[in-house]
Amino acid sequence: MTDGAALPPVIVLVRPQLGENIGKAARAMLNFGLSEMRLVSPRDGWPNETAYPAASGADMVLEKAEVCESVAQATADCGQVFATTVRKRGVDKPVATPAEAAATIRQLPARSAILFGPERSGLDAEDVALARTIVTVPINPEFSSLNLAQAVILMAYEWSKGEALAVPTRTEDELPAPQIELERMIEHFETALEPTGFFYPPDRTPTTKRALRTILTKPGWTTPEIRTLRGVVAALEKKRQD
Amino acid sequence: MTDGAALPPVIVLVRPQLGENIGKAARAMLNFGLSEMRLVSPRDGWPNETAYPAASGADMVLEKAEVCESVAQATADCGQVFATTVRKRGVDKPVATPAEAAATIRQLPARSAILFGPERSGLDAEDVALARTIVTVPINPEFSSLNLAQAVILMAYEWSKGEALAVPTRTEDELPAPQIELERMIEHFETALEPTGFFYPPDRTPTTKRALRTILTKPGWTTPEIRTLRGVVAALEKKRQD
Repeated sequence: MTDGAALPPVIVLVRPQLGENIGKAARAMLNFGLSEMRLVSPRDGWPNETAYPAASGADMVLEKAEVCESVAQATADCGQVFATTVRKRGVDKPVATPAEAAATIRQLPARSAILFGPERSGLDAEDVALARTIVTVPINPEFSSLNLAQAVILMAYEWSKGEALAVPTRTEDELPAPQIELERMIEHFETALEPTGFFYPPDRTPTTKRALRTILTKPGWTTPEIRTLRGVVAALEKKRQD
Repeated sequence: MTDGAALPPVIVLVRPQLGENIGKAARAMLNFGLSEMRLVSPRDGWPNETAYPAASGADMVLEKAEVCESVAQATADCGQVFATTVRKRGVDKPVATPAEAAATIRQLPARSAILFGPERSGLDAEDVALARTIVTVPINPEFSSLNLAQAVILMAYEWSKGEALAVPTRTEDELPAPQIELERMIEHFETALEPTGFFYPPDRTPTTKRALRTILTKPGWTTPEIRTLRGVVAALEKKRQD
């Protein structure tokens, strides 16, 4: 795939401890369209049954997961490796936010890998040494307590934002109505209000009309919404004439 | 707070089921500097011991959490209410991504609330009706399985990313009015319209009221604008009584 399409990043769990957390990571990934997972020396071996319930349906990711003996093996085919740490571990590597890392990944028509360390301790210095870039989530310095699945989900989320996933589409009925309809509604309000004295005294009329126009223009109501509002005015007018 | 500082959003858990998930939500929030939580009718009451272990140290958020009887009560002092849903529920409200919602929250020197529904079912239509904007996480259409804490963490993360940005100042008169004023205006419209037959037939009344509520909630009118509109309704009512 050298046609410029950025490959989705590979999620590498380094010495993950609980099968349940592997399952949760798979679920976190698939929410945002990632499905390629590699496991380096999982503590309880692989496959691990306990991963499946926690994956909540993301079984496909677990089925595809590859087991590797080392971080080097897991990243051998990757042109860009990121190491996630909650706080920068004082190494001389560039540090990126998840958003910056995601942007880099998308711009790179090669394979990227994102490393996540064991739940308790995180990546060690040797793991980090293999990466080009450290990714640190900008987090509350006074309280920093992300679990593995949450770290995975933030990275996956940032990556997916650039992939135009599931962007809600809007139909015509959801667009602001054309100005002509807005104008007719405003006139309808004015006509209904004139006999009520709402625009008195006459020297205030332009100002009051302008204020009402601003209020009715601000929302950007759709055609159906304008129709409903004109129904409101008509109902109140009609009763008035009875 | 009219000096331009955007207030951090209030996280509102609506009818949360497990105390453990409340704790996880508190932890998720505090990772990104949010600490104001409100609970609407928590299923197992409050305080709930089971929340504390799951909070993993975010006890302060649980200590400060307020219990409210309704979503209306929980959002009465908020000028901007967002309802999180995993997928748009076919309602006529603007839909924002978490990033867009976070940008809106930061630009608004008023209080925002973000609603999260019960773990199993999510927010219902009545909960969503009170919000001006729906927030939907752009997610894999083929696999969408975020838990409560993950939904909270994505919103909190997006909000925290922009905290360093300078916010343009706006005066209090330019902020969306607090929900309580919006609510009174909606009631005023309903009271004025009932004798006109606008809500007939009776089996259509809830739907028609809901549609009108949506239309009147959408604009985010300021306190002076709401005052003007109530003057409009009062003028039309008054004439009607003559």
